[in-house]
Amino acid sequence: MRQYSPVNFADVTIEGDFWRERLDTVLARTIPSQHRQLFEHGILESLAVSQPPPPLRIPRNHHNFTTQIFWDSDVGKWIEAASYALGHRRDATIEGQIDEITEWLAKAQLPDGYLNCWYIGREIDKRWTNLRDNHELYCAGHMLEGAIAYFQATGNRRLLDVMLNYVDHIAEAFGPGEDQKHGYCGHQEIELALIKLYAVTGDRKHLDLAAYFINERGKLPNYFDIEAIARGDDPKDYWAKTYEYNQSHKPVREQDRVVGHAVRAMYMYAAMADLAAEFDDPTLKRALEVLWRDVTSRQMYVTAGLGPSKHNEGFTTYYDLPNDTAYAETCASVALIFWAHRMLNIDLDGRYADIMELALYNGALSGLSRDGEHYFYENPLESDGKHRRWKWHNCPCCTMNVSRLVASIGGYFYSTGKDVLAVHLYGGNSATIAVGDRKVRVKESSTYPWSGSIRVAIDPETAGEFTVKLRIPGWAKDASARINGAQIDVPGNLKNGYLEIRRTWTEGDAIDLELPMPVERIYAHPNVRMDAGRVAIKRGPLVYCVEQTDNPKTPVDRIRLPRDAEVAARQRTDLFGGIVTVVADGKAAGADDWNNHLYRTEPPAESAASWTAVPYYLWNNREPGRMLVWIPEA
Amino acid sequence: MRQYSPVNFADVTIEGDFWRERLDTVLARTIPSQHRQLFEHGILESLAVSQPPPPLRIPRNHHNFTTQIFWDSDVGKWIEAASYALGHRRDATIEGQIDEITEWLAKAQLPDGYLNCWYIGREIDKRWTNLRDNHELYCAGHMLEGAIAYFQATGNRRLLDVMLNYVDHIAEAFGPGEDQKHGYCGHQEIELALIKLYAVTGDRKHLDLAAYFINERGKLPNYFDIEAIARGDDPKDYWAKTYEYNQSHKPVREQDRVVGHAVRAMYMYAAMADLAAEFDDPTLKRALEVLWRDVTSRQMYVTAGLGPSKHNEGFTTYYDLPNDTAYAETCASVALIFWAHRMLNIDLDGRYADIMELALYNGALSGLSRDGEHYFYENPLESDGKHRRWKWHNCPCCTMNVSRLVASIGGYFYSTGKDVLAVHLYGGNSATIAVGDRKVRVKESSTYPWSGSIRVAIDPETAGEFTVKLRIPGWAKDASARINGAQIDVPGNLKNGYLEIRRTWTEGDAIDLELPMPVERIYAHPNVRMDAGRVAIKRGPLVYCVEQTDNPKTPVDRIRLPRDAEVAARQRTDLFGGIVTVVADGKAAGADDWNNHLYRTEPPAESAASWTAVPYYLWNNREPGRMLVWIPEA
Repeated sequence: MRQYSPVNFADVTIEGDFWRERLDTVLARTIPSQHRQLFEHGILESLAVSQPPPPLRIPRNHHNFTTQIFWDSDVGKWIEAASYALGHRRDATIEGQIDEITEWLAKAQLPDGYLNCWYIGREIDKRWTNLRDNHELYCAGHMLEGAIAYFQATGNRRLLDVMLNYVDHIAEAFGPGEDQKHGYCGHQEIELALIKLYAVTGDRKHLDLAAYFINERGKLPNYFDIEAIARGDDPKDYWAKTYEYNQSHKPVREQDRVVGHAVRAMYMYAAMADLAAEFDDPTLKRALEVLWRDVTSRQMYVTAGLGPSKHNEGFTTYYDLPNDTAYAETCASVALIFWAHRMLNIDLDGRYADIMELALYNGALSGLSRDGEHYFYENPLESDGKHRRWKWHNCPCCTMNVSRLVASIGGYFYSTGKDVLAVHLYGGNSATIAVGDRKVRVKESSTYPWSGSIRVAIDPETAGEFTVKLRIPGWAKDASARINGAQIDVPGNLKNGYLEIRRTWTEGDAIDLELPMPVERIYAHPNVRMDAGRVAIKRGPLVYCVEQTDNPKTPVDRIRLPRDAEVAARQRTDLFGGIVTVVADGKAAGADDWNNHLYRTEPPAESAASWTAVPYYLWNNREPGRMLVWIPEA
Repeated sequence: MRQYSPVNFADVTIEGDFWRERLDTVLARTIPSQHRQLFEHGILESLAVSQPPPPLRIPRNHHNFTTQIFWDSDVGKWIEAASYALGHRRDATIEGQIDEITEWLAKAQLPDGYLNCWYIGREIDKRWTNLRDNHELYCAGHMLEGAIAYFQATGNRRLLDVMLNYVDHIAEAFGPGEDQKHGYCGHQEIELALIKLYAVTGDRKHLDLAAYFINERGKLPNYFDIEAIARGDDPKDYWAKTYEYNQSHKPVREQDRVVGHAVRAMYMYAAMADLAAEFDDPTLKRALEVLWRDVTSRQMYVTAGLGPSKHNEGFTTYYDLPNDTAYAETCASVALIFWAHRMLNIDLDGRYADIMELALYNGALSGLSRDGEHYFYENPLESDGKHRRWKWHNCPCCTMNVSRLVASIGGYFYSTGKDVLAVHLYGGNSATIAVGDRKVRVKESSTYPWSGSIRVAIDPETAGEFTVKLRIPGWAKDASARINGAQIDVPGNLKNGYLEIRRTWTEGDAIDLELPMPVERIYAHPNVRMDAGRVAIKRGPLVYCVEQTDNPKTPVDRIRLPRDAEVAARQRTDLFGGIVTVVADGKAAGADDWNNHLYRTEPPAESAASWTAVPYYLWNNREPGRMLVWIPEA
């Protein structure tokens, strides 16, 4: 079923300014600073299990829960991100740090292979008794992903072997057998790790265990009920009230509505997509198509942020997309990229690539500061100035999710199919890619996303016929293309959002793609009550926002964008090393004549006001202040 | 300083349909059902103190707090409301119920006069140790207000005597003396009760104690710090984080910003207004004028709802007035009426009467259902359909606040000054009022608030010269008036929002007042970001809202009111016994052509749509559904 395979990030050299800057920042600053933070917050120390355990660093909340319980996952995610950095350039310091962690883990590991540092250090008698809340398999999954990435980057299999022992233990503990637990994790994640492991080991057991966890999920009687009773708890006392929270309310193939905790949902769908492909399972694929439509057509912010509610860190009702209280966790948009990427490699359909790109440039990228050392957990679309980037968090999941994404960004650019090279993302890069038996050197040149003028040079090792598919983004109207200077009929060769060019390619061939990037006004479905009478600004893949700092004369809340106002892109070399802003000849509501009235029968006077919007992902990197994505039209 | 005295509610016979219906409902249904609820929820039982105490009915929350701690206040407020009912018509059942409560209280009272049933029954050793959190004096205040009202209605002074004993105890415990506590209650209220008591007893001690509590509040070192340290607590651990929460962050005369818990603030300002008048204290009056402007010009919903945040049940930042998450507690609007009423009797200024009326017909009245037995605690201005009226609440403060308000509604209609009769509110009623030495029979006839045609008949016992002041509401443009058929120059005789008519009044005189009531569009100050591009509908004193149930064809969220759309009042005899609705020839955004898109570059199509709005105070009395006050213009 999976017709395309992504090209590994390590085979793609990022050259364009946009991603080069982000990647360099992540490699030079984010990953080292994250190791420092893990050290300073006692997270690394927690791996060196000692008896008696040190006092809790993060006190238990009123549900008797501490986020410290999933520290292993933060370390695993850092190892993964750091290993991707090694994929760009080996680094003895990082390798030493990972090796040190490996030794702690090896020392902590129990003789039976079990390896969760929280449980080993604090309550080993309770292992595997609360999969619902305690992230035990989730931690295993992230550490396993880290081990795989480290092995792939360096060939060093010490950590992988440690984790393979643990996987053996897990495979014994969980499964359909009478002596096994018929359970799965409250926070999906290990499924993705096991599927990656299968790609490394080729051991069917690893794939089957991932499938077991997904297939078992939501069957009745619900495992979390059984487990709670075994613990002596009343399942009705579940703090989250509903198993929709962790998507175990019904079997996954019967799920037709995106519900609950957003990151859990997205990780699960990504794993389901992998399994649909591996098992050629149309029932999984069908469920995913329904869920994809559900989330993208009724439950997604214009930034591809997901999950409006802080309460469940997730989804609520259809079209409930409040802007100022949006949760829209960075991790959820990162995980949406994972899911979209997998859907795209099953069906090469621009719908998936469009959302992948939208999440990448907006909801996910906003999570990382310009300096690479500050983060957003929540990504609201409106702020009264109080929402600020932080240096660390009691639940630092988002930090390493965004660093592992950026560190592996090259892996989202290309896929190959049978005699096909598909190009999903644009921006300067070069790669040598095997298309069928032929090595093809590809070089993209462009200043994307600031400009839609893109050259893709295709240099096959030997001349030959194959297809190049270039994504024409959904937002790109009137795209045009030339091959070696000759015009191509884009509409006539467009299929599912990709321009298909089949020909005999020879050295020196080049495609020039022109994706017009006018400033666009975006309107929300009229059921989104929060956005009624409001408009968002988008250019290419970038959603824009108005920040107070760019508009000293006009309070952000008074800015208006009448339907006939001129909006124009403006190159700004003085901002963030060169970006494109949007300048509007809009209006501003005046407050001078209100004389201490809060309400009146006269509408506010409006006067001409020129104001500036910047890409959303960049907000709160300068002076803190108000921010707005959805601007009143008048 | 106080130039006017309100006419007692018991001297005003409500005759007009609007308030007659509300009053009858409260007398016939609300007050008896509240007694039932107090019984069924164990609140009455808690007065019959027993050892050991029964288990808690309301478990402690994570701050170790239970609202059960202030049950005495709920009983006190019910006695007050029930006594107002007796002011309309004596009732042996109610009197028996109050007498039964009185006996429980007399039995519970300690020899030294102390009388708080929570503390006596559960932790008497801790009395007066946590005024900050535990509502001890607040409970005393409400019970005292109940006792006064019962005495005034019946002449029965048994409960009053019990409470006078308690007041003596309090007056010994608190004060400037070396052996006294220099404290005051975390929840203001007792001040209002003591001032009322002074009006009954004439005992200066009662007034002085009220003044002591107000004058002491917020002095440094803060009493709540001292008290916390004495308890062995660290004052820094205060759960509310700031003494702004209970307005003890600085001395009351230095307060220039309305902050913290809204009900506490309003009760305090009401008491300050009483004290300003009693002590002729311009420093208090000046502070109140600043606070009045602060709250009404920057922090009040269009419904006169107060306090946007559930977090502190109160105020946040200026212009922060979210509609769907508005807390806007019923009690806060009731308390705003108390404050406005007192300000109005100091300075006869229509500004105060306008807000008093706005709160009465909107933010306060919305708290009571049509059937008189369901309530709102929060009064949001927008609902996705999930906000519903409830029958009872763990914190039932609002229920008795709205019943005591309605049961004494006649008390807000008139005030008298030296040779002056002032009319604040309209609606059919009659009263015999002493204006100077002369008894004047006044009869108002109108269907207000549905119509602004009002006849006020003035029948003095003996002919004589005095002034009648008729309020011309701020919303009433081009008001006209005739006296015995002859036109009066309204603008020429208007002072501070009141039409002044000085003449020799004789039997049979009548004023015909015409307050035009067009449907008005209301706009919010442009700093209120939530209302940008939106408009509210108002007619006379009533704010309107759109409810789904009246508009089956058009989802509420899609309704639009373009600036040039026709809006008209429509009499509807089929709804709620006869009301005026507003019908708009507006528009509705269409969703038919969105094809599963959530965002697009084309604005939503709009088509003509006629839709109906109803008075806000009536919402959620029929089928539950979405509701909206602030309607997008387009």
